[in-house]
Amino acid sequence: MIEDFGNFKRDKYCGEVSLEDVDRELRLCGWVHRVRNHGGVVFIDLRDREGIVQVVIEEKTNPKAYEKADRVKPEWVIGVVGKVRKRPEGTENPKLRTGYVEVFASDIKVFNTSEVPPFPVEEETHVSEELKLRYRYIDLRRFSMSQNMLFRHRFYQTTRRFFEEEGFIEIETPFLTKSTPEGARDFIVPSRLHPGKFYALPQSPQLFKQILMISGFDRYFQIVKCFRDEDLRADRQPEFTQIDYEMSFVREEEVMDIAERLVVRLFKELLGVELKTPFERVSYREAMERYGTDKPDRRFGLELIELSDIFGNTEFKVFRSVLDKGGVIKAINFKGSNLSRKEIDNLTLFVQKLGAKGLAWIKVEQGKLVSPIVKFFSQQETDNLLRRVNAEEGDVIFFSADTKEMVYKILGALRLELAKTYGLVDKSKWDVLWVVDFPLMEWDETEGRFLSLHHPFTAPVEEDIPKLEEAVKVQDLAEKKALVHSVRARAYDLVINGEEVGGGSIRIHRTDLQGLIFKLLGIGEVEAQEKFGFLLEALKFGAPPHGGLAFGLDRLVALMRGLESIRDVIAFPKTQKGICMLTSAPDYVTPKQLKEVHIKVME
Amino acid sequence: MIEDFGNFKRDKYCGEVSLEDVDRELRLCGWVHRVRNHGGVVFIDLRDREGIVQVVIEEKTNPKAYEKADRVKPEWVIGVVGKVRKRPEGTENPKLRTGYVEVFASDIKVFNTSEVPPFPVEEETHVSEELKLRYRYIDLRRFSMSQNMLFRHRFYQTTRRFFEEEGFIEIETPFLTKSTPEGARDFIVPSRLHPGKFYALPQSPQLFKQILMISGFDRYFQIVKCFRDEDLRADRQPEFTQIDYEMSFVREEEVMDIAERLVVRLFKELLGVELKTPFERVSYREAMERYGTDKPDRRFGLELIELSDIFGNTEFKVFRSVLDKGGVIKAINFKGSNLSRKEIDNLTLFVQKLGAKGLAWIKVEQGKLVSPIVKFFSQQETDNLLRRVNAEEGDVIFFSADTKEMVYKILGALRLELAKTYGLVDKSKWDVLWVVDFPLMEWDETEGRFLSLHHPFTAPVEEDIPKLEEAVKVQDLAEKKALVHSVRARAYDLVINGEEVGGGSIRIHRTDLQGLIFKLLGIGEVEAQEKFGFLLEALKFGAPPHGGLAFGLDRLVALMRGLESIRDVIAFPKTQKGICMLTSAPDYVTPKQLKEVHIKVME
Repeated sequence: MIEDFGNFKRDKYCGEVSLEDVDRELRLCGWVHRVRNHGGVVFIDLRDREGIVQVVIEEKTNPKAYEKADRVKPEWVIGVVGKVRKRPEGTENPKLRTGYVEVFASDIKVFNTSEVPPFPVEEETHVSEELKLRYRYIDLRRFSMSQNMLFRHRFYQTTRRFFEEEGFIEIETPFLTKSTPEGARDFIVPSRLHPGKFYALPQSPQLFKQILMISGFDRYFQIVKCFRDEDLRADRQPEFTQIDYEMSFVREEEVMDIAERLVVRLFKELLGVELKTPFERVSYREAMERYGTDKPDRRFGLELIELSDIFGNTEFKVFRSVLDKGGVIKAINFKGSNLSRKEIDNLTLFVQKLGAKGLAWIKVEQGKLVSPIVKFFSQQETDNLLRRVNAEEGDVIFFSADTKEMVYKILGALRLELAKTYGLVDKSKWDVLWVVDFPLMEWDETEGRFLSLHHPFTAPVEEDIPKLEEAVKVQDLAEKKALVHSVRARAYDLVINGEEVGGGSIRIHRTDLQGLIFKLLGIGEVEAQEKFGFLLEALKFGAPPHGGLAFGLDRLVALMRGLESIRDVIAFPKTQKGICMLTSAPDYVTPKQLKEVHIKVME
Repeated sequence: MIEDFGNFKRDKYCGEVSLEDVDRELRLCGWVHRVRNHGGVVFIDLRDREGIVQVVIEEKTNPKAYEKADRVKPEWVIGVVGKVRKRPEGTENPKLRTGYVEVFASDIKVFNTSEVPPFPVEEETHVSEELKLRYRYIDLRRFSMSQNMLFRHRFYQTTRRFFEEEGFIEIETPFLTKSTPEGARDFIVPSRLHPGKFYALPQSPQLFKQILMISGFDRYFQIVKCFRDEDLRADRQPEFTQIDYEMSFVREEEVMDIAERLVVRLFKELLGVELKTPFERVSYREAMERYGTDKPDRRFGLELIELSDIFGNTEFKVFRSVLDKGGVIKAINFKGSNLSRKEIDNLTLFVQKLGAKGLAWIKVEQGKLVSPIVKFFSQQETDNLLRRVNAEEGDVIFFSADTKEMVYKILGALRLELAKTYGLVDKSKWDVLWVVDFPLMEWDETEGRFLSLHHPFTAPVEEDIPKLEEAVKVQDLAEKKALVHSVRARAYDLVINGEEVGGGSIRIHRTDLQGLIFKLLGIGEVEAQEKFGFLLEALKFGAPPHGGLAFGLDRLVALMRGLESIRDVIAFPKTQKGICMLTSAPDYVTPKQLKEVHIKVME
């Protein structure tokens, strides 16, 4: 039944057949999308990557082709020879590019058959994600999936063209490199030639791009795979793609300018959207205080409102004890929402899952305050509170009283949950902003030391360096913390619609300053040498001032395509457990393979 | 001594300063390439990625700047403010783009100092490769190295533009995938979430690109890293870069046409060289017979000459026994070379290292034949031989009599050695050819089975398929071999100047044929399912006819740059032992890291 492909020469893609082709004889190839027989006439919707065209085969005029056509099934691969003609009046399909024509076939070739696919190649499929991933090649035939890949392709080309025009040099950095267990967990690769030693897959080309600046390349970029062996949260992948760039003899402004112009270009070329520049700058502190997060989505309101001062002298025990411990009280006013008790209960459940003890609230209903807690407030507290949150009929006000970190976490998440549940997001808007003025380091209670908010190569703001120098000398931890926490990083994150799509910094280019930072991070000299020795050494041989940025390509593409999951813009993604359903990687290997690389599996 | 970079704004690259800038005040940044003091005037050659400009600082007019300038050392990073002026007559340097101007500095900023570099940033350095790799950032500052990287950058962009214009879609394939131990050794990556299971780094995206064709993308390309854990021969790297593409509904011609037009474009745009198309096609058999290799360098002669027929009835025992065992006798005539006995001895040593027993030869000297073996030939044999090789005064004729494989190996290598030693290669020539009509499989004595010459997914020539079908049934091994060896693959290798720079094939797109091939390769159904199950399954759901090709990017770039070693076109290459001298990868990891991925190092 299967015929040789032989010398069959395709004239164009199915999706490209148009009125201009009328009366021409064409040869087309593709997949049988749909096939139906209406009394001696077979209609085949023939599909390729560019679209679908209708093929008509008549028993009367072409009995041999008809016989074949009558046997084909969905997803068979066929070739068609036929003349293009206008569709009969009334049968046009204006939704399709090819909707005004059809191909009247004189011959059909079957190049391959297909078993019945596990799910149809349709936009609306109700099968499990797992099944779709297992038969990814079927899923990728769906128009929306192939369009995602095509969009990503265009995204790559626009990005590279931009960097090329801006004088950046594309340089490949190694994949088999050294493990630097600062940050996330590394994937390690045993070495056959060096028993007991391992390569590591790079979490980012960070150190190499700094080395490239020290090498004098001045402007480097790369679209590159990176690897993190993390517990895969909702929408992470163990391997992901970054747009990575680095520049010499620059400050924050020059690095951010490149990022802005790239994003503007991508939005314009790929979406036809004009973004306003310069992108707004919001300080880390402001972002946290107003939105409870360093990646705010500002397409809707529901800002956090500070109430700690109003309850400064409160006798309400719960608030009192929070404030006494240095905590804060904040609220969100969900205006005019008139939430029911049941809805409020659901939200309470939501915040409890995040670790909140409960969710205090006030509802303004028929001019009265309905609330489980208002009875504990003084009249003045209530008055001030209502004024501060601008309480009006139908409003529901949610409270969080806890440590600052917890309040941000709870109200930040509650804000997003309300927006999602009640459709508050204006999806026609693009909220693009820079978050800047991050603290350089934060004290980590678990590890009992300072940790870099970005990474240890991030430069501090010049005028804050004396504080670091002092902090090293100070013995008292509280005093040390106060000093260190007031030091700002020369870092910047790009946030779009509440997603962090890029981040970077000006790097440290001086050995002495890098040493000081390691000291404050509690990384000893031996450890620093072991982990980053080559960078520290390179800094000694004429490192220029430099900085850069990296975009998460998967996330940015998904965002631009309006997709929730990055899996939809990755050809062969892995599940949350890191499994490739298609190939069933990871898998067992042979004892010989293990032996060759000098390892043994631990029981 | 080190000053803040602060608000110093560079106006242009050092290498871009020209006569057009005369009388303009410029700010430049760069590395001190050379510095000398001539009686109150400091001359600094300031270097950046675009070149070098001369900076002049006078004590008389700028005492403060002079004081700083007098202290700078090579590889310090500085900023210069100064006015551009014409160089005094007689001091111009026409070799430099900036050679007609100099910058008369009013201010100098020291942005970083440098220790004395381990070797100077000069084209001619006589230090070990190891030292250069360890301080790669110093080595990369050399003009030729940065030009290599810039060339490679342009190579990428031209390549991608070409594929984009031709309607190919760039799609990323996974790096963490499944081990398929057919072919070279895989690098394996232990999985933390799946104890005892491993990912493998891809040796090529072969299976994924076939899956992409089955997904309907029609034309795919990618510039992608691949990994092979092989014993690193002379100029191999454990990670290397491929230009990979695949097309649907095509034959050999369409795939080769794309490759030809890409290569023509690269040579034209990057080298200004016009290659003649179509590239010549040479059959595998012809290549072997004439050059002893499937990747001939035809920029010089020294072709292999068949002599077996001449010695068909010889009584010379050595030849006799070779011919009786089915071996062959071939020669190379190194015309007019007048090699000395010592030179011949050296060549004998060379072939002995390759496994030859010795190297028989005849020299035509003053009308006589000087030779250790000619005395064993009959007069007729000698006459025929001399006529066949067109022996003339000064010629030296080398013989090899052995199995066909050995003769090809020895004379093929000898041919290259002679060309190298005696400078026979015309370096202005580009010898570009396709090698085609490869056998599909060869019998492997060691493994006692047939092996694919390319890979098991390569399609046989349609008209040869019946031979395969017969071969499966045949019991007699000799008969089976004869059948199988006569089957041609639909494969093609692109060879430039004796280097294989690309190779590909039309793939098998039918399940039944793929099954037949596995059977002949001795890959059982269970094994096939385990290794390639997902491809075999995918073939069942409407696989189109398809084929593709992959270029070795590192090799092609090195070739175009006229470089011997691919290490010179890779920013951070590894040594032959797979070590990154810069980062000292691979390295030991912590016991915690091993435990997390459930492995133990074997003592």
